[in-house]
Amino acid sequence: MKLPIHPLSKDSFKPYGEVIEIEGSAHFPINQGTTERFHNLANLDLNVVGGKPIVSIFESQPRPLPIKLEVMERHPLGSQAFYPLQNQNWLIVVASGLNPTNFNNLKAFRAKGTQGVNYARNTWHHPLLVLEPNSRFLIIDRDGPGKNLEEIEFTENVFLACDAVI
Amino acid sequence: MKLPIHPLSKDSFKPYGEVIEIEGSAHFPINQGTTERFHNLANLDLNVVGGKPIVSIFESQPRPLPIKLEVMERHPLGSQAFYPLQNQNWLIVVASGLNPTNFNNLKAFRAKGTQGVNYARNTWHHPLLVLEPNSRFLIIDRDGPGKNLEEIEFTENVFLACDAVI
Repeated sequence: MKLPIHPLSKDSFKPYGEVIEIEGSAHFPINQGTTERFHNLANLDLNVVGGKPIVSIFESQPRPLPIKLEVMERHPLGSQAFYPLQNQNWLIVVASGLNPTNFNNLKAFRAKGTQGVNYARNTWHHPLLVLEPNSRFLIIDRDGPGKNLEEIEFTENVFLACDAVI
Repeated sequence: MKLPIHPLSKDSFKPYGEVIEIEGSAHFPINQGTTERFHNLANLDLNVVGGKPIVSIFESQPRPLPIKLEVMERHPLGSQAFYPLQNQNWLIVVASGLNPTNFNNLKAFRAKGTQGVNYARNTWHHPLLVLEPNSRFLIIDRDGPGKNLEEIEFTENVFLACDAVI
């Protein structure tokens, strides 16, 4: 089965969290007028059950084409934000409903290199999918007590449609 | 007076907060081995007095050369992290001691485009200093009740040394 890819937008991603981007975001001048602040772009939800926010960098390698979906994961104790550190498209797969590996529950997006996302707490998503070697992302997620990772592996062959790499 | 510029490193920045970078940071594999996680790179201190973490984007313009220092600021209620979204050098000015505009208390750093910083709570720093138009940064700082900004303007002429732009 081949999952089609949609362009990422604030509206289309709303069920899953927020798109972190300048386009369409409120801003105001600071720093003696030298800087515009695009303010508070995501709902960081990181302080549940004694958690605290942390910042990390991920460096990720592309998977073989066509991209085969491996596993869906979610974080029951916190949101997780990704922002790309190079201006390159990247891919996002999310799921709604009770069975996140069911083809009909999946949705794939192509993000631009100027678009990050914040997965809302408990949102099922595929691990990072990049299209170029050594792709780096800044990550804002939760550290703290408790089990903050659930995973479900795919039992069917689901591939991303070929236009994923455009 | 001309303030010399030093290369930014984890050690040299230690009195002011943390450098957020891959180089020299601990990491481990995740995501079926496709990704290295450089984990928890800064001491985010954002939950004091009812505060919460927020993520924003700053888009900043260069000041005229030679760069004249205008004002020092600090945030008594939270840390503030900056990570560049383009691979370009940028500049940092921090201060220790009680008088942050006193020349002898100032220290300037040249950061690479792969280096972010997290200013510790209460660390005096100059507003963002960039060298290229439309320079973007991802910011992790605090939202919440209370006055989280103190500013002191320079009364003497302090410039960054000419090698700032190298």
